[in-house]
Amino acid sequence: MRALSGNAPRIAAAVAGCAALLLPSHAAAAVPAETQYILNTLSFLIHGTLVLFMATGFTMLEGGLVRTKSVSTILLKNVTLIALAAIGFWATGYNLMFTGVDGGLIGTLGPWSPDDAAARAGDYAGAASASAWLFQCLFAVTAVSIISGTLAERIRLWPFFMFVMIMSTLLYPIQGAWGWGGGWLGARGFLDFAGGTHVHATAGWAALVGAIVLGPRRGRFLRDGSPRTLPASSLPLATLGTMILWLGWLGFNGGSLGSMSSAADVITIAQVYVNTIMATCGGIVAAVVLLQATSSKVDLTMVLNGALAGLVSITAGPDTPGIAGAILIGAIGTVLMLATTQLLLRLRIDDVIGAVPVHLPCGIWGTLAVAFSNPDASLVTQLLGVVSVSAFMIAASTAVWIALRLLMRLRLTQGEEAIGIDRVETGALAYPEFATKAIIGVD
Amino acid sequence: MRALSGNAPRIAAAVAGCAALLLPSHAAAAVPAETQYILNTLSFLIHGTLVLFMATGFTMLEGGLVRTKSVSTILLKNVTLIALAAIGFWATGYNLMFTGVDGGLIGTLGPWSPDDAAARAGDYAGAASASAWLFQCLFAVTAVSIISGTLAERIRLWPFFMFVMIMSTLLYPIQGAWGWGGGWLGARGFLDFAGGTHVHATAGWAALVGAIVLGPRRGRFLRDGSPRTLPASSLPLATLGTMILWLGWLGFNGGSLGSMSSAADVITIAQVYVNTIMATCGGIVAAVVLLQATSSKVDLTMVLNGALAGLVSITAGPDTPGIAGAILIGAIGTVLMLATTQLLLRLRIDDVIGAVPVHLPCGIWGTLAVAFSNPDASLVTQLLGVVSVSAFMIAASTAVWIALRLLMRLRLTQGEEAIGIDRVETGALAYPEFATKAIIGVD
Amino acid sequence: MRALSGNAPRIAAAVAGCAALLLPSHAAAAVPAETQYILNTLSFLIHGTLVLFMATGFTMLEGGLVRTKSVSTILLKNVTLIALAAIGFWATGYNLMFTGVDGGLIGTLGPWSPDDAAARAGDYAGAASASAWLFQCLFAVTAVSIISGTLAERIRLWPFFMFVMIMSTLLYPIQGAWGWGGGWLGARGFLDFAGGTHVHATAGWAALVGAIVLGPRRGRFLRDGSPRTLPASSLPLATLGTMILWLGWLGFNGGSLGSMSSAADVITIAQVYVNTIMATCGGIVAAVVLLQATSSKVDLTMVLNGALAGLVSITAGPDTPGIAGAILIGAIGTVLMLATTQLLLRLRIDDVIGAVPVHLPCGIWGTLAVAFSNPDASLVTQLLGVVSVSAFMIAASTAVWIALRLLMRLRLTQGEEAIGIDRVETGALAYPEFATKAIIGVD
Repeated sequence: MRALSGNAPRIAAAVAGCAALLLPSHAAAAVPAETQYILNTLSFLIHGTLVLFMATGFTMLEGGLVRTKSVSTILLKNVTLIALAAIGFWATGYNLMFTGVDGGLIGTLGPWSPDDAAARAGDYAGAASASAWLFQCLFAVTAVSIISGTLAERIRLWPFFMFVMIMSTLLYPIQGAWGWGGGWLGARGFLDFAGGTHVHATAGWAALVGAIVLGPRRGRFLRDGSPRTLPASSLPLATLGTMILWLGWLGFNGGSLGSMSSAADVITIAQVYVNTIMATCGGIVAAVVLLQATSSKVDLTMVLNGALAGLVSITAGPDTPGIAGAILIGAIGTVLMLATTQLLLRLRIDDVIGAVPVHLPCGIWGTLAVAFSNPDASLVTQLLGVVSVSAFMIAASTAVWIALRLLMRLRLTQGEEAIGIDRVETGALAYPEFATKAIIGVD
Repeated sequence: MRALSGNAPRIAAAVAGCAALLLPSHAAAAVPAETQYILNTLSFLIHGTLVLFMATGFTMLEGGLVRTKSVSTILLKNVTLIALAAIGFWATGYNLMFTGVDGGLIGTLGPWSPDDAAARAGDYAGAASASAWLFQCLFAVTAVSIISGTLAERIRLWPFFMFVMIMSTLLYPIQGAWGWGGGWLGARGFLDFAGGTHVHATAGWAALVGAIVLGPRRGRFLRDGSPRTLPASSLPLATLGTMILWLGWLGFNGGSLGSMSSAADVITIAQVYVNTIMATCGGIVAAVVLLQATSSKVDLTMVLNGALAGLVSITAGPDTPGIAGAILIGAIGTVLMLATTQLLLRLRIDDVIGAVPVHLPCGIWGTLAVAFSNPDASLVTQLLGVVSVSAFMIAASTAVWIALRLLMRLRLTQGEEAIGIDRVETGALAYPEFATKAIIGVD
Repeated sequence: MRALSGNAPRIAAAVAGCAALLLPSHAAAAVPAETQYILNTLSFLIHGTLVLFMATGFTMLEGGLVRTKSVSTILLKNVTLIALAAIGFWATGYNLMFTGVDGGLIGTLGPWSPDDAAARAGDYAGAASASAWLFQCLFAVTAVSIISGTLAERIRLWPFFMFVMIMSTLLYPIQGAWGWGGGWLGARGFLDFAGGTHVHATAGWAALVGAIVLGPRRGRFLRDGSPRTLPASSLPLATLGTMILWLGWLGFNGGSLGSMSSAADVITIAQVYVNTIMATCGGIVAAVVLLQATSSKVDLTMVLNGALAGLVSITAGPDTPGIAGAILIGAIGTVLMLATTQLLLRLRIDDVIGAVPVHLPCGIWGTLAVAFSNPDASLVTQLLGVVSVSAFMIAASTAVWIALRLLMRLRLTQGEEAIGIDRVETGALAYPEFATKAIIGVD
């Protein structure tokens, strides 16, 4: 029986605990095992709730940054992808990522089901299985949420949904198994606290390949290759989305420790919260200063992306830097985001909301930066993780996007794109009663 | 003295606990009573905060689904109803619902006040009284929030406020006393975990009767009875509201266990979170697939209502199904919601936001579904609960709505409705600077 | 060694605790020290997350209440001020406010860094240092967030940012040191639970002085001094912001107890939640009734400000009143807010969103009201606190605003103001695709 064979340390602890009652020491103050179990579960639930809120953040951010004629479809995509990704991660994702990986490449096939027999029998290790699963499931949801904005306004509904299902059932879990699931990469000491590489760079690659395969929106680049600004529908909505993402990210990073049952745990979680917030502050200030210096105007959407660049940059290692380090990591993230934004424009790659510049370079940068703040990390191993996951995601998402293109029409026709994806896919505009400047003939 | 008379189990537990210190078993790992009290209170506070957020969700959902000329009034109604319902539930609701019901029909009259004497004296059973009260109070707020959207755009401010006060002080507490308050229905074993019947069907009946008494908006149905679509003002706002409701529902269902002080508690709460999310996913996917299959377009507002249908459907019993069961319960909810939407249109009943199709059939369905997933439930008793609460709510809300119609003018005049309720009741449009298509002569 | 010298009470407690195991009493039920440390930290993290959400609330509220041509700049200001205030509070604010004040006027200079050595050594007093710091830091963010709305539409970006930095590094910490930091005012027994004076009145004075120095928006007052209504861009956005603020305020007030590790703690926190909500309800109902009685229309923006007036009014003492008292405190807050709104109009002071009427009189009123509900408070001391902090903030913010006016141009030119601050400062309108009535020539 598990309870018997595993009891040696428990006996020692119980004896020590009893003796401690007669002594002035701290053992008497220890957290009982069942309390630990409750607190660990509570951490997954509270932080998971915040991660679910990130889906709202992405939805509002993307709804605000697309054109008015494309808003209701991006809302529909983002709401639906939560459901598809969660069901997919339940059906195969979780077990492929976490069950029986044992230093290898992948886990097992089949749907996940909860197992709390040990805790019910009094062995209170870890947390309620459904809480841990939920937290992981919402990470899969986050990874696919990142992709939708890049491809907005031109990808049809069902090809997008197909990619979401493949991503949540196969692509995301496979690369996740390598590091987080106990696979070969984790065995080599790769450190990625909350997913700079496993979530953000991974999703960034999938989005980038998708944008290349799909091609830019019509009118985004002129004949000579120079980009034309296609106006965002609502900056308040985009700002709301960004601020909700910021809030939700406290759960994304804070819950990734996986436990909240000792003083050491909460010291780390508090540091993670502080670093997550301060890196965002670094990203914002860097954006404001750089934009003011280079263009005399401060473009709000770039400041929002600066905040997100700071958040992505700190994600791989929010537990070790000091505050000044966190601010710097976030500020460098903004520089990379701004540079990548320019690079994509030169390459005529159309990322509607700038998700690739935010998630891809900053996810990689943050993963490498762990080597500078965490003595347990090795730059070589971090680089190995980034390169191997990137190589897999480039190859796999290229294969999937091209297969999808062979199987079905990926994007709108020219005529459909002109009237707007909302009329084609949802049949309803987001703001049907409001006049747009196009309607009344003002530029 | 209560502390003495109630001490027999405590003595046994303490002796067992002391002995356990010398043994390798789990008793040493038990949660101390004061820690339990803290954690139970924390559950009510965290989950209550999420339930308060649901009021924001309803406000944004309804603000997004009414026409532009009616937005500021629905916002005003939803903000004000929180205050009226909370004060009403304090003044009479809580004690009528929970104090001294003793297997009967109602409790006592009079305002609630906190009582934590037992805990202050060291008897740490339950949770801080104010936290438990707050959680219940916010359920009353939720119940009346559901009603406002159905009646929007035509009911005058004060008749609506009168109904809110009667609902929170009398109607909601009376039927709630039967099941949750320890009344005759609960004594028979009626199970309604978070209020499929006690909150959602109850509010659905009040809204349905109100919509019938009030009549449809002018122009909603043509002479031949065919419905005309009156456009929503803002789908992003409606989507935001739905996603906030989803988040808040984790608190609504998660907190309804009423405790968070043992491993068994958090295992249940984690399962409740997972089932709440997965039923929503089932509702969303069912809506997307059915809409695509039947109309070639995927109507975003119906997908949002599908999400809410999933949430309502799982509410009566989120603690017992497995994941596949939860998905199915949610998906069936969407089917019922879509069918009821069609039925109301045939009956020429105008529910502005579709609250009745979401809350009434899905609340009933979920309550009956408990009998299939929970071995402690009986289908007959579940049916008895649904029928008795429904009969009471139909009779009581008919009486109240008709009495209100005799006492005051319920709805706008034809002229007032034409210029819009915002100009009549609040004197200010929601978006005063924006041009609507009506202003510039575009359809 | 600290652990030794401080151990006398610990020994006594441990012995008592051991004895208690053989007795039926509550000592056996006590919360272990490490659990207390975890729960205290958790309180700061959960409540701090809610306080961070208040920044989103202010941003949406202000974005909704300014004119359409000024929305993107106020969004930019509010996002950026979080970063500037947090970095400033880290660089000097925290230590100036909290370190070594010792009954005096100010603390020490220099950036803050975490110190959890005691807890790591097993001395589990208090909470993780980063969690306590974060909570305080977000209060500084809140204080500066209040100011931005008053000055909107006319103050240039960088003068505003300069004031934010001075406020978070110097003004806010200095007056905070007097009461909360262990300074002379706290030593005299001044009670300000969550900052009626230290946050809200303080920010209200800074905003009022700024509005006077800056002058009103062009067109706000006619030649004869009568005010002209400049329309809000989006009431749904303003409502969303207010409701988010309400939610966040539960963290603002609830976390201000500073601990969550005993039954007495959570009884108080639950009461704080209830009173915070019920005072808001009082503020809302008072606004609806007064507006209906005096103008036959119920102005939504005034009801929103009534909710906020209730919240500010209860902030100084949410821990002691009963529910009826809390409702009354909130309702009186609304009366003061409405009166101050009229007063500012007569004085031709232009507060774009009404932040001064909400935060200044209600912050003061709430601080004085503590004397009526809390037996530990003295009206004279409360008055002393209000007067001394007010005198300091009037003098200091006058000096800073005038110094800034000498150093740089504070506001837009007439021409810039006519085309709108968004075109000047951010170069992008908030809703670039939508037609405004101005564009199409409708009033």
